[in-house]
Amino acid sequence: MENNHIVKSFDQELKQIENFILEMGGLVEIQIHESVKALGNRDIELAKKVRDDDKTVDNLEIKIDELTLRTLALRQPVATDLRSVICALKVASNLERIGDYAKNIAKRTQVLADTNSVGTAEKTIKRMADLVQKMVTDVLNAYVKKDIEMADDIRLRDEEVDHMHNTLFRELLTYMMEDPRNITPCMHMLFIAKNLERMGDHTTAIAEKIHYVVKGALPKEKRPKGDKTSQMSVENTIEGNQYT
Amino acid sequence: MENNHIVKSFDQELKQIENFILEMGGLVEIQIHESVKALGNRDIELAKKVRDDDKTVDNLEIKIDELTLRTLALRQPVATDLRSVICALKVASNLERIGDYAKNIAKRTQVLADTNSVGTAEKTIKRMADLVQKMVTDVLNAYVKKDIEMADDIRLRDEEVDHMHNTLFRELLTYMMEDPRNITPCMHMLFIAKNLERMGDHTTAIAEKIHYVVKGALPKEKRPKGDKTSQMSVENTIEGNQYT
Repeated sequence: MENNHIVKSFDQELKQIENFILEMGGLVEIQIHESVKALGNRDIELAKKVRDDDKTVDNLEIKIDELTLRTLALRQPVATDLRSVICALKVASNLERIGDYAKNIAKRTQVLADTNSVGTAEKTIKRMADLVQKMVTDVLNAYVKKDIEMADDIRLRDEEVDHMHNTLFRELLTYMMEDPRNITPCMHMLFIAKNLERMGDHTTAIAEKIHYVVKGALPKEKRPKGDKTSQMSVENTIEGNQYT
Repeated sequence: MENNHIVKSFDQELKQIENFILEMGGLVEIQIHESVKALGNRDIELAKKVRDDDKTVDNLEIKIDELTLRTLALRQPVATDLRSVICALKVASNLERIGDYAKNIAKRTQVLADTNSVGTAEKTIKRMADLVQKMVTDVLNAYVKKDIEMADDIRLRDEEVDHMHNTLFRELLTYMMEDPRNITPCMHMLFIAKNLERMGDHTTAIAEKIHYVVKGALPKEKRPKGDKTSQMSVENTIEGNQYT
């Protein structure tokens, strides 16, 4: 009876940790959505809200840390249970980083508020953000369901985010070349695109952790890495550039 | 006697984890140094070495993860011991990220190899890297000695890295405005500077974890945040810009 009680409590604690992860994930999804919405509408108030909300996300990570440590100390789980608790700790850290990137987009939005949008870049940013937000939604579902197939699918979808990032990178550099007045806004847009690409990476990292909890090992296949921007140069690719 | 044996073994395991952290940290220090050296000398071979070395760093993180999980399962530590093990897990993750940023600098170096250095930016990059590398050395010492004062000092030094980043950011944007041929190299330099700034943040995060292991709580004082680049705009600050 006593033993049964302990087992039940442990499950309840795991459930509680999971609920905090879901709460955190839900907030982060909203942050992603609202940061890019604020950018599109040049809405400084909404950008400020995204920055303020990040404190709640950070506090949830601290709460999850405390709870996992307490669970480890009191329940001393092993095998899958131990992996689940450690996984929660790491997933919380990934979500916190995703929230930070959204906060950074909101910060940059406050500078971009005084500028006009350049070309089609903001539309691509919006599509990237939608994709990443959907990945976060799905990875949280996969996390709750311990669904490896779903998790593996998310790893593959990150490639699309990387490809959009590559295209955007080239496009933004081109605008910068065309008119020096584009330099400041496009440079902030480059960092915003990079932030979204990094969010995709962190979501993928969460997906890999689900694989780890269920299977006891990280996925064997290397995930496809599609981000090529670190090695891009556009000087020689632009026809009719007014400066060349 | 039996109990004594178990206690001794646990200490040995903690020591082993610590040694892996130090090995990882030592490699990451070399990565920082060599990535910026490769940039300065336009040394593609050295840049390639930095990228290759990152696999060793990644494997060390996996090893530390496995070891901490085994220690948690077999030893079921509590209180300070538990915090030490969890801290190692998180520090390994921070070091892995720092290594990733060095790898990214090495990738960008391979593009920059065909370009001349612009202004004094690379000298500032070098000084930033030296500062960050020294912070990593010191944070590893503080980690081994469980020295809170040393750890708190590192948190303060990160402000200097942030200030250098701010200056560099403005400088690089100015070069981009002056001549469109500077856009691609300066844009990569902007990301390199950002990488170094992020390395400083991760080093600071390690310092805060040392505080946590020793005191059981994160430092109360908010660390000073000096990175202002997300809200910078230079259009109106440049006199004699040939395009305005």
